[in-house]
Amino acid sequence: MKFTVNRQSFIKKLNDVSRAISTKTTIPILTGLKLEVTDSEITFTGSDTDISIETTLRVDDESAELTVEEPGNIVLPARFFSEIVKRLPEANMTIAVKEGFQANITSGAAAFTINGLDANSYPHLPEIESDDEVTLAGDVFRDIINTTVIAVSNQESRPILTGVHFTLAGDQFTAVATDSHRLSQRKITLPTPATETHDVIIPGKSLVELARMIGEDSNDVKMRLAENQVLFLLGDTSFYSRLLEGNYPDTSRLIPSESDTTMEISAPTLLSAIERASLLSHESRNNVVKITLKGEEKSATIFGNSPDVGAVEENLSAISLDGQDLEISFNPDYLKDALRSFGQSQIKLSFTSALRPFTLVPSEDAENFIQLITPVRTF
Amino acid sequence: MKFTVNRQSFIKKLNDVSRAISTKTTIPILTGLKLEVTDSEITFTGSDTDISIETTLRVDDESAELTVEEPGNIVLPARFFSEIVKRLPEANMTIAVKEGFQANITSGAAAFTINGLDANSYPHLPEIESDDEVTLAGDVFRDIINTTVIAVSNQESRPILTGVHFTLAGDQFTAVATDSHRLSQRKITLPTPATETHDVIIPGKSLVELARMIGEDSNDVKMRLAENQVLFLLGDTSFYSRLLEGNYPDTSRLIPSESDTTMEISAPTLLSAIERASLLSHESRNNVVKITLKGEEKSATIFGNSPDVGAVEENLSAISLDGQDLEISFNPDYLKDALRSFGQSQIKLSFTSALRPFTLVPSEDAENFIQLITPVRTF
Repeated sequence: MKFTVNRQSFIKKLNDVSRAISTKTTIPILTGLKLEVTDSEITFTGSDTDISIETTLRVDDESAELTVEEPGNIVLPARFFSEIVKRLPEANMTIAVKEGFQANITSGAAAFTINGLDANSYPHLPEIESDDEVTLAGDVFRDIINTTVIAVSNQESRPILTGVHFTLAGDQFTAVATDSHRLSQRKITLPTPATETHDVIIPGKSLVELARMIGEDSNDVKMRLAENQVLFLLGDTSFYSRLLEGNYPDTSRLIPSESDTTMEISAPTLLSAIERASLLSHESRNNVVKITLKGEEKSATIFGNSPDVGAVEENLSAISLDGQDLEISFNPDYLKDALRSFGQSQIKLSFTSALRPFTLVPSEDAENFIQLITPVRTF
Repeated sequence: MKFTVNRQSFIKKLNDVSRAISTKTTIPILTGLKLEVTDSEITFTGSDTDISIETTLRVDDESAELTVEEPGNIVLPARFFSEIVKRLPEANMTIAVKEGFQANITSGAAAFTINGLDANSYPHLPEIESDDEVTLAGDVFRDIINTTVIAVSNQESRPILTGVHFTLAGDQFTAVATDSHRLSQRKITLPTPATETHDVIIPGKSLVELARMIGEDSNDVKMRLAENQVLFLLGDTSFYSRLLEGNYPDTSRLIPSESDTTMEISAPTLLSAIERASLLSHESRNNVVKITLKGEEKSATIFGNSPDVGAVEENLSAISLDGQDLEISFNPDYLKDALRSFGQSQIKLSFTSALRPFTLVPSEDAENFIQLITPVRTF
């Protein structure tokens, strides 16, 4: 194996697959990066068994300045190899494996020799043969992930809740996550209806990495589903994630259909006040903030306190406030996450009673995006 | 006590004194910020007993928009108070202490009440009455600190070596630090000779904070010395540090006066190569990099290896290389720190033998700046 390549182009691909490579794996070869070199391209592979990423750098990509002298395969220690490549002195570098699994990395006057592993011992990636492909706009899909993944559970006691539940039926694509204290649900209508119905649970951790990988790029993301795997295609890069097995709880019955008190307010205004109140609630043992709603004054009074440190009270004017007066207490961190997901929007909050979950929806798109929070009993 | 002030101006002062406030103190009141309000100014004080910082915000500073309604003093929990002030909604805020030690902080609709402490219980700052003041250009002094403090020891077993040794005699100002494996020494000539001779050891930690506080500002720094304290004056801010007691070892005899091999090379070129070699030495148990100097070829070959991971070799061309051929091994992290202190300069390295300390000086200013490194025996 021997090739010469532009270091920056190589580093970009290296960084992409490194997202899947963990140093804390029980399978030593998975701390490595697999390189497969043919006459026309280099394929990079990284995996932690939950997520696998594969990408290619092609000879016909001129900026990569890739010339292959001899094809071959090798697995190199990922973290260490990556540090070396980033610190080499020249714009280009040459990597050669002559005998055994020792790689020579040269750039300018610097010559490294590092010990690799046999690429034949590297686990095979799952094969996903599926014609049923869903295409999503990258920025829309990233937004769906980022606004739902906040509500996944990080407790392994109910593993199914550590994922986001995606359902696809006709042109309706729904994502929902709940940790049983709060819930976030997004719906979109696809331009082309899917031919099959799908119902899958994708681990939150995989989605967080995927969303980072989509980045600010708004290119399309293609999704292919198999029995226990999902494959996302982003340009030259394939992102595989395992699926969570089991039945996701029926969340539709959790969302209240009626309300006794509704308030419209700007999301960032409410967010700033909740952030201030949580400064105090975080200092107390039970981390609770209280809102008192008064219809006559159209006012929401936010109250946080800590017996040791002090208290804060803030009176906000709502855009509209209808229905019964109410006093409700909740974990402010859940409300902060929910409010951040609405950006600069105006939102509508709907309450039933002090002990029933309340909901938040954007005033402009109330049907397709809902956040739900369960209050805390304080008496 | 009651005053109204522009929040940004207040935060700037708060950040300055916060450098001296630790959350890990055994004296509870020192986790607090002391505010002393008179009709003309607010004085801010923070201290961890090693370092104390005092600064003022004046009514006649127009951008501070400070109006004092009622003078008074209070100690407020620093970290928490600072978080509140930074999150308030409006440009201005009002702080009032009505009865006891409860402070009301209001800004727009937000009203905080937080528990403070009696300012009379706050320890007194040392008093330094000294006419003998040394004035240093801020950027020069910051540079002296940053280039010597790298060599202080972080081991409390010999506390005296955790400080930088400053001596002042006539117009000669010298700073030296050593952890017994390496040494860094700077000298400058003052524009005005000092009237008294001084010899003090200032803790490295104090100097690091002081250097950060000087920042990119090149305003003058005034230094006043007392028996066990030093005071630095930076504009409106007073920075106190305790001094280390004891006799600093005589370092002058450590610096070799002769050499058998000398090499001139660009500091950043050598630094990059040593950084690459240290990637491998860090993976091995003894963290050693070897340089082989060959006069005839004017070449320096840098070699690092780790039995498990691999090896690196790099051949650099020196600008000049005179004297005997030499092979010398050392801790690359010491050499990296030393090389960084020379920035983009050309430097001269002088060696005696494989087991004797070697020195680095800038080619352009060899008299006033020297770094010394003790090699490692590898056979």
